[in-house]
Amino acid sequence: MPHRYFTTEISDGTAVLRGADAHHLSRVMRGRLGDTVILCDGSAVEYTATITGFGDETVEFSVEPGCPSAAEPTVDVTLLVGYPKQDKLEQVIRHGVELGCDHFIPFFSRYCVAAPKKEEQKNERYNRIAFEAAKQCGRGILPDVALPLPNFGAVCRSLDQYDLVLFCYECGGAPLRQLLAEATPADGEKLKIAIITGAEGGFAAEEAEMAAKAGAKTVGLGPRILRCETAPLAVVSAVMTLTGNLE
Amino acid sequence: MPHRYFTTEISDGTAVLRGADAHHLSRVMRGRLGDTVILCDGSAVEYTATITGFGDETVEFSVEPGCPSAAEPTVDVTLLVGYPKQDKLEQVIRHGVELGCDHFIPFFSRYCVAAPKKEEQKNERYNRIAFEAAKQCGRGILPDVALPLPNFGAVCRSLDQYDLVLFCYECGGAPLRQLLAEATPADGEKLKIAIITGAEGGFAAEEAEMAAKAGAKTVGLGPRILRCETAPLAVVSAVMTLTGNLE
Repeated sequence: MPHRYFTTEISDGTAVLRGADAHHLSRVMRGRLGDTVILCDGSAVEYTATITGFGDETVEFSVEPGCPSAAEPTVDVTLLVGYPKQDKLEQVIRHGVELGCDHFIPFFSRYCVAAPKKEEQKNERYNRIAFEAAKQCGRGILPDVALPLPNFGAVCRSLDQYDLVLFCYECGGAPLRQLLAEATPADGEKLKIAIITGAEGGFAAEEAEMAAKAGAKTVGLGPRILRCETAPLAVVSAVMTLTGNLE
Repeated sequence: MPHRYFTTEISDGTAVLRGADAHHLSRVMRGRLGDTVILCDGSAVEYTATITGFGDETVEFSVEPGCPSAAEPTVDVTLLVGYPKQDKLEQVIRHGVELGCDHFIPFFSRYCVAAPKKEEQKNERYNRIAFEAAKQCGRGILPDVALPLPNFGAVCRSLDQYDLVLFCYECGGAPLRQLLAEATPADGEKLKIAIITGAEGGFAAEEAEMAAKAGAKTVGLGPRILRCETAPLAVVSAVMTLTGNLE
């Protein structure tokens, strides 16, 4: 399989790759004139591209007409993750990108053990992890990681932009299958799904009420207690399975 | 929620806990006479137990009649995992136990990068990880981790004990939904499902053929390339979702 790179500089049958990716292709992969790679514009369009030249820090290509990326799921999933301890958020981002999530929004809530610290710096790192995972697993878009929301109120205020908000709560709720069957997207758009999972400490009862008032559907994940880094991946896998995006 | 411990010493309305768990309950949790815990016999039966005495290294209980554990899925899943590098097998075991797997069998195959090394010792550690995960997530049985099979031939020779063998292959296959709908368990038994996923290097074409000859159904996991530690969790989540065990 040819290597894949993301670049927005694609127009009129030519394209340019810069920076670390250009270095990777020319030095690490030892690309040669005439070699073929896949270029992706980050908006789910892919191009077969042939190397036509090397600049100082650039690689130039001629590109064939683009075609839609086959790797993008038919649903637009945003993962709202209670900020976990240690490097668990990195794991969630890496797995989540592979499983087809488009957006990640960490948040702090009542029972979070983690506290905000150098979040701008960490956010850069999280986005780099999402970028690398997207390249590796063959995504057609670049999933993004937002700066963390400061509290659960901010999460609830952000929910009206989604067609379906799934609030994963250990006290159980409706089966996912039923909630997905009932949800309908805006005309001609992908179904926009938000999945909210908690940090190690879970959610306070008041937070569950706030989420319900903001339109979230409480969803149960079965009788086993899933850890905070397992739950998001289980729900995303379940959503992708039930919408036919994991087959 | 009361704490949970596993013990096989339950009979005639009494029970005994020994070793590290007895220490944990008496010293760490500072259990007192009359306190209540949940005891589980490791065969999916749970007992509400009241502390009646403390020995040197033991805790004694009176127990109420047992009831079946609600945490056990309706399918019996064995995860056959291509031996991955670093600590990824530990991750797979930990997540897999939470998601409801009963057995783990690592194996070496053509494109495995990891090589066998102190496997008896590691196996003890893997089983301890499974045990801790089972306690934490509230399982009613103790999932086990086998010693690794030396090659893919050994995997294929072990497959006739399952009702359905899912071979996860990047070249795609039938949708999981369809394979699960077609499978039927032996009379009065749980459906026995084996899930086979590869190590970092994936499978050789000959290995895919061997698996098919041994009765495995090739299953595709969609257009995104899942890493070797993501794939098993995605398939287990999908199986549990489609069989109603993640709701």
